[in-house]
Amino acid sequence: MNPVPSKTAGAVAPFEMLQGLVAAEMAEVNALIRARMASEHAPRIPAISAHLIEAGGKRLRPILTLAAAKLCGYGGTDHVRLAAVVEFIHTATLLHDDVVDGSEQRRGRKAANILWDNPSSVLVGDYLFARAFQLMVECGSLRVLDILSNASAVIAEGEVLQLTTAGDLTTDLPRYAQVIRGKTAALFAAATEVGGVIAGVEEPKVAALRAYGDGLGMAFQLADDVLDYGGTAADLGKNTGDDFREGKVTMPVILAAERGDAEALAFWKRVIVKRDQREGDLAEAQARMRETGALADTLAEARAHGAAAVAALGDFPEGEMRRALTEIAVFVTDRVS
Amino acid sequence: MNPVPSKTAGAVAPFEMLQGLVAAEMAEVNALIRARMASEHAPRIPAISAHLIEAGGKRLRPILTLAAAKLCGYGGTDHVRLAAVVEFIHTATLLHDDVVDGSEQRRGRKAANILWDNPSSVLVGDYLFARAFQLMVECGSLRVLDILSNASAVIAEGEVLQLTTAGDLTTDLPRYAQVIRGKTAALFAAATEVGGVIAGVEEPKVAALRAYGDGLGMAFQLADDVLDYGGTAADLGKNTGDDFREGKVTMPVILAAERGDAEALAFWKRVIVKRDQREGDLAEAQARMRETGALADTLAEARAHGAAAVAALGDFPEGEMRRALTEIAVFVTDRVS
Repeated sequence: MNPVPSKTAGAVAPFEMLQGLVAAEMAEVNALIRARMASEHAPRIPAISAHLIEAGGKRLRPILTLAAAKLCGYGGTDHVRLAAVVEFIHTATLLHDDVVDGSEQRRGRKAANILWDNPSSVLVGDYLFARAFQLMVECGSLRVLDILSNASAVIAEGEVLQLTTAGDLTTDLPRYAQVIRGKTAALFAAATEVGGVIAGVEEPKVAALRAYGDGLGMAFQLADDVLDYGGTAADLGKNTGDDFREGKVTMPVILAAERGDAEALAFWKRVIVKRDQREGDLAEAQARMRETGALADTLAEARAHGAAAVAALGDFPEGEMRRALTEIAVFVTDRVS
Repeated sequence: MNPVPSKTAGAVAPFEMLQGLVAAEMAEVNALIRARMASEHAPRIPAISAHLIEAGGKRLRPILTLAAAKLCGYGGTDHVRLAAVVEFIHTATLLHDDVVDGSEQRRGRKAANILWDNPSSVLVGDYLFARAFQLMVECGSLRVLDILSNASAVIAEGEVLQLTTAGDLTTDLPRYAQVIRGKTAALFAAATEVGGVIAGVEEPKVAALRAYGDGLGMAFQLADDVLDYGGTAADLGKNTGDDFREGKVTMPVILAAERGDAEALAFWKRVIVKRDQREGDLAEAQARMRETGALADTLAEARAHGAAAVAALGDFPEGEMRRALTEIAVFVTDRVS
């Protein structure tokens, strides 16, 4: 769930290209976010929200809503509102996630639950979630409300499922897919789908936008799961090991454990189930994942989802918006080496 | 926020009277709640929800939605859905409250955050909140969505405000009123208002139902704040002192501190601001509240809100439903002696 890194070889990086195409609307989204996270009575709310929102995540999700609406030729203003809704829902889940995971860092800064406290993070998350629904109601579309309330339920369900699969090596790939569809792809899919809905395009195109968001979100999360073990290269990067330390049973773990012998299984049980982790264990986990092809195959799965996202755009008009959405779907997995 | 106790002198207690008038619909609400708290993928969700919901709170809030709709002659089925929505929102806030307050007990059972853990309580609360919005969308009324999303924002704002006023003796009565309007009265007001909205009654009646819910909620919370110090009688009951231990600055504290001399102020600063509490301090706090009239005046304020609730029903047809709603508004303060 980290922001997409922007450094790539070549002229304009894919994320910057997409960002540039919706820059004017994004400025309106930012203004709306600032206006709506205010609270007359409880100044701690904007303080915490600003800490997180102004920290400058890449805002990929709201950008997707704007881009999807524009790809459909939308000419109104509700995409700005809905982009703010999507960012509020995302920020609310980040606040609650940090409480759930006991995180100390978020977007390169101390997490809100550390700077303030867990109660504040829980309640400000609730506030942003309620604010998101208020903004949705202003758009006046019951269908949009349906899509985003369903997404919210799936997100929460995915998070609970992740909690109960942590440390559980019996988690299989379908169950894992449910977890990441909930924790990541559901909001991506809703973000792009509502762009098509407010533009009033025909149903196959709405479904295609949803499929695009789902594919992109799955690719994004699977790539992240690979990056958490340093990618497929031999070197361990500096931002690795969070999933490992938390005993999360991600696809690389599932594959490596499945493909290992009894000794390997004993290793995975010790570090993931018992969370008995010693110096060198992360490097050993990574080596086992490389040797069994677990990282490469997870990345291949990520690329398949990215390809599905690209394919879903096939019936939309060619042009710079479709090109930018295509490139970002390739880029989310290409950032992994 | 405790359930309303039902034991009174006389034939049928007010709560049982109200409950009896909506018993058939309430059975449907309970069935709907059970159906919608299920989660195919994450069995911990129904386990936690059931723990809390089946514990048998009195379900005053959903009963109010049913009663308000029936008072308006409503003949449809959406009041059942909305009653379930109201109970889901209430349960979600209870789950999050227990995390925020570090509570160990809820509805006479161990709190979910103790039986499971804080992360589960946070995420299952989020799930129930999302489920509530899904159910609302099914009713198809943007106005109902507006009312309940506004209420959700005010609830969260009130909880954050309560967090920041805890231990803050500079909290004045208007600020305190905002806290309890948020934490309690907002959901009561929304619960009764939506009953009128779906029944399609004219605007003054919708406003009157909202005023009824607000008055009842304020009376209920103020009476609770008095009960937390054992009521106005000399004896300390057994369920007292939670607010005191948490350093909550409720109306009895504000009045007692305002009306005391320098020595009294020093006492309140020690026990509420510094939370330096010793044996006998709760009894001393209660004595100071009795001597300054702080408890009696808080109860008087509660009764004034109850009376406003009763007055708001003036234009509704006389009959057993109006009588039951009137009696419950009197009863919530009469239970305090």
